[in-house]
Amino acid sequence: MKEAWGRWGDADERGSLNHISASTIRDAAGLVRQGRTISLAQTISPSLPVPKSRPGIMHFMGRDGGDYAAGRRRPGGFQFSDDTIVMPLHAGTHIDGLCHCWYDDTLYNGFAATEVRSSGAARLGVDKLGPIVTRGVLLDFVAVNGSPLADGYSIGAAKTKAAIDRAGVTLQPGDAVLLRTGWQERLEAGGDVDFDAEPGLDVEAGLLLAEADVALVGADNFAVEVLPFAAGTVFPVHQRLVRDYGILLLEGLVLAPLAAEGVSEFLFLAAPLPIHGATGSPVNPVAVL
Amino acid sequence: MKEAWGRWGDADERGSLNHISASTIRDAAGLVRQGRTISLAQTISPSLPVPKSRPGIMHFMGRDGGDYAAGRRRPGGFQFSDDTIVMPLHAGTHIDGLCHCWYDDTLYNGFAATEVRSSGAARLGVDKLGPIVTRGVLLDFVAVNGSPLADGYSIGAAKTKAAIDRAGVTLQPGDAVLLRTGWQERLEAGGDVDFDAEPGLDVEAGLLLAEADVALVGADNFAVEVLPFAAGTVFPVHQRLVRDYGILLLEGLVLAPLAAEGVSEFLFLAAPLPIHGATGSPVNPVAVL
Amino acid sequence: MKEAWGRWGDADERGSLNHISASTIRDAAGLVRQGRTISLAQTISPSLPVPKSRPGIMHFMGRDGGDYAAGRRRPGGFQFSDDTIVMPLHAGTHIDGLCHCWYDDTLYNGFAATEVRSSGAARLGVDKLGPIVTRGVLLDFVAVNGSPLADGYSIGAAKTKAAIDRAGVTLQPGDAVLLRTGWQERLEAGGDVDFDAEPGLDVEAGLLLAEADVALVGADNFAVEVLPFAAGTVFPVHQRLVRDYGILLLEGLVLAPLAAEGVSEFLFLAAPLPIHGATGSPVNPVAVL
Amino acid sequence: MKEAWGRWGDADERGSLNHISASTIRDAAGLVRQGRTISLAQTISPSLPVPKSRPGIMHFMGRDGGDYAAGRRRPGGFQFSDDTIVMPLHAGTHIDGLCHCWYDDTLYNGFAATEVRSSGAARLGVDKLGPIVTRGVLLDFVAVNGSPLADGYSIGAAKTKAAIDRAGVTLQPGDAVLLRTGWQERLEAGGDVDFDAEPGLDVEAGLLLAEADVALVGADNFAVEVLPFAAGTVFPVHQRLVRDYGILLLEGLVLAPLAAEGVSEFLFLAAPLPIHGATGSPVNPVAVL
Repeated sequence: MKEAWGRWGDADERGSLNHISASTIRDAAGLVRQGRTISLAQTISPSLPVPKSRPGIMHFMGRDGGDYAAGRRRPGGFQFSDDTIVMPLHAGTHIDGLCHCWYDDTLYNGFAATEVRSSGAARLGVDKLGPIVTRGVLLDFVAVNGSPLADGYSIGAAKTKAAIDRAGVTLQPGDAVLLRTGWQERLEAGGDVDFDAEPGLDVEAGLLLAEADVALVGADNFAVEVLPFAAGTVFPVHQRLVRDYGILLLEGLVLAPLAAEGVSEFLFLAAPLPIHGATGSPVNPVAVL
Repeated sequence: MKEAWGRWGDADERGSLNHISASTIRDAAGLVRQGRTISLAQTISPSLPVPKSRPGIMHFMGRDGGDYAAGRRRPGGFQFSDDTIVMPLHAGTHIDGLCHCWYDDTLYNGFAATEVRSSGAARLGVDKLGPIVTRGVLLDFVAVNGSPLADGYSIGAAKTKAAIDRAGVTLQPGDAVLLRTGWQERLEAGGDVDFDAEPGLDVEAGLLLAEADVALVGADNFAVEVLPFAAGTVFPVHQRLVRDYGILLLEGLVLAPLAAEGVSEFLFLAAPLPIHGATGSPVNPVAVL
Repeated sequence: MKEAWGRWGDADERGSLNHISASTIRDAAGLVRQGRTISLAQTISPSLPVPKSRPGIMHFMGRDGGDYAAGRRRPGGFQFSDDTIVMPLHAGTHIDGLCHCWYDDTLYNGFAATEVRSSGAARLGVDKLGPIVTRGVLLDFVAVNGSPLADGYSIGAAKTKAAIDRAGVTLQPGDAVLLRTGWQERLEAGGDVDFDAEPGLDVEAGLLLAEADVALVGADNFAVEVLPFAAGTVFPVHQRLVRDYGILLLEGLVLAPLAAEGVSEFLFLAAPLPIHGATGSPVNPVAVL
Repeated sequence: MKEAWGRWGDADERGSLNHISASTIRDAAGLVRQGRTISLAQTISPSLPVPKSRPGIMHFMGRDGGDYAAGRRRPGGFQFSDDTIVMPLHAGTHIDGLCHCWYDDTLYNGFAATEVRSSGAARLGVDKLGPIVTRGVLLDFVAVNGSPLADGYSIGAAKTKAAIDRAGVTLQPGDAVLLRTGWQERLEAGGDVDFDAEPGLDVEAGLLLAEADVALVGADNFAVEVLPFAAGTVFPVHQRLVRDYGILLLEGLVLAPLAAEGVSEFLFLAAPLPIHGATGSPVNPVAVL
């Protein structure tokens, strides 16, 4: 039995989202003061960098304005365009489903890994999550550090506490905690993307957030946690947070525009696409100020 | 020049979303009382019905629990699954971008249809919209009618006013108006889906909503408007609302659970994926009560 | 140990193709008299019928003439079009790889089924086959029967011998035996395709061909063997021929034009695409008369 | 009117393949002496290099042995695997359809470029070609040169004549001429692929082959012609050969194994997949010795 297993019943497939209560949502709605929305998502396109181990994004037009320019008929005057996307579900800004990673052949809440087959995840699919509406908290490590963190920079518990202090908030159960490392901004500035090195959380800092009963940990990097991993470990923060605590991870956030607002808490919204048995979903998370 | 062209400047690519002001968002946030979220989206899967003219959805696992059961190595103990989706962007619950349809070779706000090519829409792509946070208003035609509307049932202006009266609300600029016809519920009950017939808006009713300066018109059917079309017309509501008024259409909603709550107004959220140059986006719209 | 296991060594991944010797190829080339080619393949398009359990075909243009009509630049005068296909590998006219089916968790030649994972088939992939050049023999059951065979018609050993007699040939090791049932022609005539019923081989007839050391059994139906299956069995001919004899199956052939030539033997060519670890490949098989 | 336009009628969509006569095929079959086949194709996989402007290849298993290891049921004992490929049609070893490139808005034989739209090519699609069976002639520039040609090396008419002399053959109408530059072998040796530079034909050499009435020009590089282009030109050989002469180009060949045989002429087979309206097709071309 791991930390959060059985905490919400043996059949639970929503993990840490259970920390979000009705009052959490009501209080979060009360944070809206300016009446402004800020998207936290990267643009999705074939030029979006993806790790070499994953296929890239394709976007195809099935009909477009060129077809009409080339003489296509227009019954009833109607003209239209449409399109199809081919998209790996862990590219760009996306949420990791609770079936995305595990160890010892067992998923969060004790489900067998054999529930996840070519036909999709019979348990813990991203379609089980539902929309996420809660308080968002921005931890701005770029501001704490004075500059974007370097690749390989390991964010530990002390640094995390410092960022919480700087934010001037007390973490509450159900919070969506968003970590700004500066990685995304460096990426946007051009140059090749190295998916093998990034600043991010170490295990101790991850557990600090998990023990605070947060609902979600997001970051402006590729994997939330620091890369390369500590010697002998592979995605240790994923292993502990996703599988043992049932915590949702949100990767590839764009946080600089939000950070520029100087606001630490806000209404946070993210609605994963209910893709049956999927291990993740692209999302366009929103901060409402 | 059509009704809304130039209203927000010659370069505008967001159309009726401009009706959503800061006070609209603040007021909408104030509607949150229960602290509950309701997803308005269909589950996405290969078995989701799509019109014959569109490709279906594919979902592929690139790694899964079966691979480990078959002996795959697990460096550092880490195990994971991931997946890729092939998805037409006008399937299931989705928003139509303003570049999705037009007539006379000209799009909303006077942009040339030739801006929309195989490489995507250089203008009016769904990536230009940004997140949608506003007041949602449910118009429950099933309740007004006493039963789900029949295929081919044309919702006119009088019926629309009756539904507004029943809802007990006054339409405001920036509203997201959601129409429950009962089509989706009949579909869920099984049986073949006929994408050539559905209950929906007629042009007059569509214009009634457009002139009320709503931001978005959604429905629990495939095309918002009634099918089959009036003789000699093809998607006349799309032509007028999308191209002339710049109004966002949201199709394939699941509204029965929301209707069961007996609430007519609520905080409405929908965040299209910022797919570069896309003509539409799947969304998981949310009502927060 | 099954019939053909170990026959060509423990590492063999080409099965019955080993029956094709240098003299087989030389003799087959000697059958070319008219100097004419006949394609035996169906056209590949999104409208190609596929079983409900498989995704359909998609074909997307990434650039086309419409783009230039819409004003796209043409550096150096050069204009082009290109495209991408999304294709299930067991649709239309295709060859089954030896890793495509099995029983008792063991593939042809004793390889473990766990060699076939999400990353593809480490053993017996279609890329191991190489081009197929041999004598083709047409067994025309439509001619023998006097009309196309009915769905569910089971072709037994006696009927098979009758068709061989009618062809006036003696089966030789390495032959590609092509069975015309008339199913494809009925399909082309329109109407819905029922992938649950077709005329085809029974097990006894399949074994008759297998014991004759043929290299390949092709047919103008969906599964070579009769559907529905005999009670209590599922794809029994596939189980025996592919897994126990290592015989290549070729499905979805178009054989009416070849049958119209009145020629029973010919140079036969089929070159599977060498897709790494794939379980099948679309092919355009050719008869050269 | 260009060189080959109208030569085989105004409706012709097969271009230079018309040079292949019955006697061409019969004579080619007569070249089979050893009874051996050599595949000239690259392996198709997600790791196949493609130019940055094109999407890569994806290969997905829809069912595999891991699923059974994870406990999937096996009705009637039957177990199977299947898969789907996502493949740009101008990747790896492929044939260019006659609709693939043009200039002045007009395709081979005078067809309008507006025939090529999002729905595919209504004219000159690769499905119009049919199987290619003819004499193959290997021109081994690596042997002539003494080593693989350098990137940017321009093969002119004199060099081409020297290679023909070395081969000891006289070009005949309908020949499939295959050019070995050594590019592919260098590529296979590892290292990054540079699709902007390769050895290949110049225009004069291309015209020399075209005027010899060859049916097809293939090469072991990415574009048959030399890259970078002569100043002010873009794919000049493509423009002239495909559009003006209707000549089929075959790119990405693997020719080293064939060259090692020391044979200059052989039976050549290539059967494009009949993809409706496609601009190209992957092929597994075969030399039969």
